[in-house]
Amino acid sequence: MRLKSISYFKSSNLIKINPAQLLSLGFLGLICVGTLLLMLPFATKDRHHLSFVDALFEATSAVCVTGLVVVDTQTTFTTFGQIVLMVLIQVGGLGFMTVGVLIALFLGKNIGLQGRLMIQESLNQLSLQGMVRLVKFVVGFTLLIEGIGAIILAIRFSSDFGIGKAVFYGIFHSISSFNNAGFDLMGGFSSVTGYVSDVTVILTLSSLLIIGGIGYTVILDVLKKKSFKKLSLHTKLVLLITLFLNVVGPVLIFILEYNNPGTLGVLDIKGKVLGAFFHGVVPRTAGFNSLNTAELTLSSQFVTMLLMFIGGGSGGTAGGIKVTTFVVIILAVWTLIRGRDEVNIMQRRIPQELVFRSFSITIYSTAVVFFILFILTITENAPLNFLLFEVISAFGTVGMSLGLTPELSIVGKVVIAFLMFIGRVGPLTIAFALAKRTKKLPFKYVEEKIMIG
Amino acid sequence: MRLKSISYFKSSNLIKINPAQLLSLGFLGLICVGTLLLMLPFATKDRHHLSFVDALFEATSAVCVTGLVVVDTQTTFTTFGQIVLMVLIQVGGLGFMTVGVLIALFLGKNIGLQGRLMIQESLNQLSLQGMVRLVKFVVGFTLLIEGIGAIILAIRFSSDFGIGKAVFYGIFHSISSFNNAGFDLMGGFSSVTGYVSDVTVILTLSSLLIIGGIGYTVILDVLKKKSFKKLSLHTKLVLLITLFLNVVGPVLIFILEYNNPGTLGVLDIKGKVLGAFFHGVVPRTAGFNSLNTAELTLSSQFVTMLLMFIGGGSGGTAGGIKVTTFVVIILAVWTLIRGRDEVNIMQRRIPQELVFRSFSITIYSTAVVFFILFILTITENAPLNFLLFEVISAFGTVGMSLGLTPELSIVGKVVIAFLMFIGRVGPLTIAFALAKRTKKLPFKYVEEKIMIG
Ligand SMILES: [K+]
Ligand SMILES: [K+]
Repeated sequence: MRLKSISYFKSSNLIKINPAQLLSLGFLGLICVGTLLLMLPFATKDRHHLSFVDALFEATSAVCVTGLVVVDTQTTFTTFGQIVLMVLIQVGGLGFMTVGVLIALFLGKNIGLQGRLMIQESLNQLSLQGMVRLVKFVVGFTLLIEGIGAIILAIRFSSDFGIGKAVFYGIFHSISSFNNAGFDLMGGFSSVTGYVSDVTVILTLSSLLIIGGIGYTVILDVLKKKSFKKLSLHTKLVLLITLFLNVVGPVLIFILEYNNPGTLGVLDIKGKVLGAFFHGVVPRTAGFNSLNTAELTLSSQFVTMLLMFIGGGSGGTAGGIKVTTFVVIILAVWTLIRGRDEVNIMQRRIPQELVFRSFSITIYSTAVVFFILFILTITENAPLNFLLFEVISAFGTVGMSLGLTPELSIVGKVVIAFLMFIGRVGPLTIAFALAKRTKKLPFKYVEEKIMIG
Repeated sequence: MRLKSISYFKSSNLIKINPAQLLSLGFLGLICVGTLLLMLPFATKDRHHLSFVDALFEATSAVCVTGLVVVDTQTTFTTFGQIVLMVLIQVGGLGFMTVGVLIALFLGKNIGLQGRLMIQESLNQLSLQGMVRLVKFVVGFTLLIEGIGAIILAIRFSSDFGIGKAVFYGIFHSISSFNNAGFDLMGGFSSVTGYVSDVTVILTLSSLLIIGGIGYTVILDVLKKKSFKKLSLHTKLVLLITLFLNVVGPVLIFILEYNNPGTLGVLDIKGKVLGAFFHGVVPRTAGFNSLNTAELTLSSQFVTMLLMFIGGGSGGTAGGIKVTTFVVIILAVWTLIRGRDEVNIMQRRIPQELVFRSFSITIYSTAVVFFILFILTITENAPLNFLLFEVISAFGTVGMSLGLTPELSIVGKVVIAFLMFIGRVGPLTIAFALAKRTKKLPFKYVEEKIMIG
C-alpha cells in the first residue's frame, strides 16, 4: 500500500488526503447511505422498523461483506430492503473505488495518475499499469461468475420455491456468496442449515466463495499464464495455502464433529463429508453456516476462529490478516529458529520490508481484536468463547456467530460494526488514515541493544 | 541469545551441544530429580502419595517457578516435601547454570570461555565480561533480599503461628515470592487470600516479587549508576514499563472489581486498594492471589491474562514474553504506522535484528499457547476462559488459576507441565534446541514481492 499524499487542489494546496483516508471515507459514505435506505419505512416489513443502531449495523455488515446480522434478513426486510442489502454487498465487494472508476469510464472521462493511484490503493495492487483494464476485468469477471452461480442456484431453488422467488434467491445468494458476504434469505437465522447435505447448493456456494475470496490478481494471473511454474510467487502462495487450509480445515472439523449429535453426528456419511467440507471452507471468509454453529465443540469453535482470523487472499472479497501474511510470519519465525537471515520461499526472497509489515499487521490485528474483546467483556454478559468468536468473525468480515449478535447491547453493536469496518478497509488502513505521518529523520540515532525474550 | 555450538570433545568432535540444548537438559534433569524426591513416601503426608504425573507436575511447577499446583502444598506435603519444593524453587529461580558455576567456584576451578558462554546463555546476558562476578552478585543479592523478606514475614507470622512455624513460613514465602514461584503454605488452595488487607504481608510479598522479576542486570545497573540518565536503555525501559504496568494493572482491577461482591466488593477502602494493587502486580509473574481468582469478572480475567502474557524483565525470575519484547513490538507497529523505518526510543535506535526477534518471540509464543489451548479443548471439559487462563498462566510461569489445575486430565497435566517448561526455558530456546541449524546460503535468491494484509 503506497501512501503518497495526493493534493486535490494542487495550486492552493488546501486539502491533502491520502489514499487510506479516501478509501476509509468512501466506505463510510456508503455505510451512511445504506443506513438511511434501510431505515426507510418500506425497507422493512410491518412492525419491524429498524432503530438507527440496528440499521447502521446491518448496513455496515453488508458494505463490509461481513454477514453478521442483528435481525433475520428474510423475516425483517421487504424485497426493497433485501435489494438494498444486495446492492450494498455488491458495491462493497467490488470496492467503491472500482465502481467510481467505472462511472468515470462510462462518462468518458480519462483516468489520470491520481485516479490510478486511488484504484491501486483500493485493490492493493502492485503496479500502476493496466489499472483500468483490471477494473474492467474485475467487473466483467464478477458478473460472469455471479451469473453462472445465480442460474445454478435458481434452478435448484425452483424445486423448493415458486419461480420468481427461486430466481431472486438465486441472484441474492450468488452475490452474497461470491462477495463472501454470508447474508441469506432462509429465515429464522438458519443460514443454509437446511441444505447441509445438498450437493448442488453446497458446491455452488463453496465454488463462488472460494473464487471470490482468492483475490482478483490471482485469478488474472491464472487466466493469463499457461503453467503453474510461470505464475507469480504471490499466485502460487495463495493457491497452495488456500488448498492447504481448505483440506486441513474440513478434515479437522470432520474428526472433531464426527460424533457430535448437535452437528455431524446425526448426518449420514455424505452429509458428514459435505457438512465438514462446507464448515471448513466457509470461515475464510463467507460466513454461511450449514451446521448449527452454537452446537460445535469448543475445539471446532477454536479451529473456526483460527481460520476466520487468517482469512483469504489479498485484493479479493475476503477479510482476515490474509493467507500471505500468515505464511510470511510462519516462515519468518522458522527462518529465525533455523538461524538464517532471509525469508526464502520457492527459491525467492521475501523483501525484509514485507516481513516487517506482515508481523505488524498480525500484531496490530491481534491488538484490535483483543481491545474490542475487552470492551465486550464489560458491556456484554456472555461466555468468553461467544465474545471471542463474535469479535474474530467481525474482524475477519466472516459473519458466523454463536448466536450473540442479536443479543448485543447498543455499545456492543457499535463496536462490532466498527470492527467490521476496520476488518474490511484493512487492519492498518484506518491507522494510516488517522496517524500523522512524520518525515523521516535526517539522521540516525545511535544503536543500543536491549535484552528481550 | 548467542547460539555458537560448543564442542565438549574438541579433539574427537563426537558430541556437539549448543547452550540452548544444555539449558533445556539442565532444567529437565532438575525436574527429574524433583519428581523422584516428591514421590518418596516421606515427602507426602499419610494417604497423600503422589502419582508419577502429579509429582512430575509439581516438580516442574517448582523448578519453573510457576506455582500451578494439582494438590494443596500445605495439606499434602510433609516438611521434607515442602523443603524439597523450596529448594527446587530456589535452584530453578537462580538458574541451574548459576548454581553450577557456584559449585565450580567452591571447588576452585577456573571458569573457561565455554563455561562463561553457558552462563551468558543462562542469564541472557549481553557481554562476557564479569560473568563470574555477576553470578556471585546474583547469589549474594538473592540471599540478602530473601533474608530480609523472611525476617519481616516471620515476625508478622509469629502473631498467627508458633515461632518455629512462623520462621519456616517466613523463609518459604520469601523464597517463593522473590523467585516469583507463587507456592504457598496457607492450605486449601487459599494462597494469601487471608491476608488481602494486611499491609505488611502484601507489601513485603509485592516488593520481593517485583525486585525478583525485574532482572538482575537491571538491579546491577541501578546499583552501579548514580543517575537515571546514565542507566542503560534496557534498564530505563524495564523500569519505566514495569512502573507503567504496575500502575495500569491495579487501577484497572480497582475499577473493574470495585463492586464485585466476590472480590473487592466486600472489602473496605484500604482492602480494596491493597487487593487491587496486589492483583494488578502479581500476574507479572508471581502467581499468589489475595483475591478469589475464580470470582473475578471476565474483564479482570482478561486484564490478568494480558499481564501474565507480557510477564516481567529478562534475566530475572519472571516469565512471559518480557516487558522489553512487548514494548519493542508496540513501537515497531507504531513506527510503521507513522511511516518511518527505524524503531527509535529515548534517542536510541533498536537494532533491526532485535525488532525481528521480538516479533518472532511474540508470534511463536502465541502459537505455542494456542496450540496447547487447542489440545486442552479436546481433553478437558471446561469453559474457554478457564482453559485460556490456565494456559497463559503456565506459559508465563505465573501460577494463577481459575481452579482448573487440580481437575486437569492426565494429558492436560502433561501438556501444562510441558508449557511451564517452555515458558521458563524461554519461548524460543526449545525451538533452538530441537531445530537443525542450517548454514547460511552462499547466495541470495531473487527478491519477489507478494501482496499481504
Ligand atoms: K462474510
Ligand atoms: K510464578
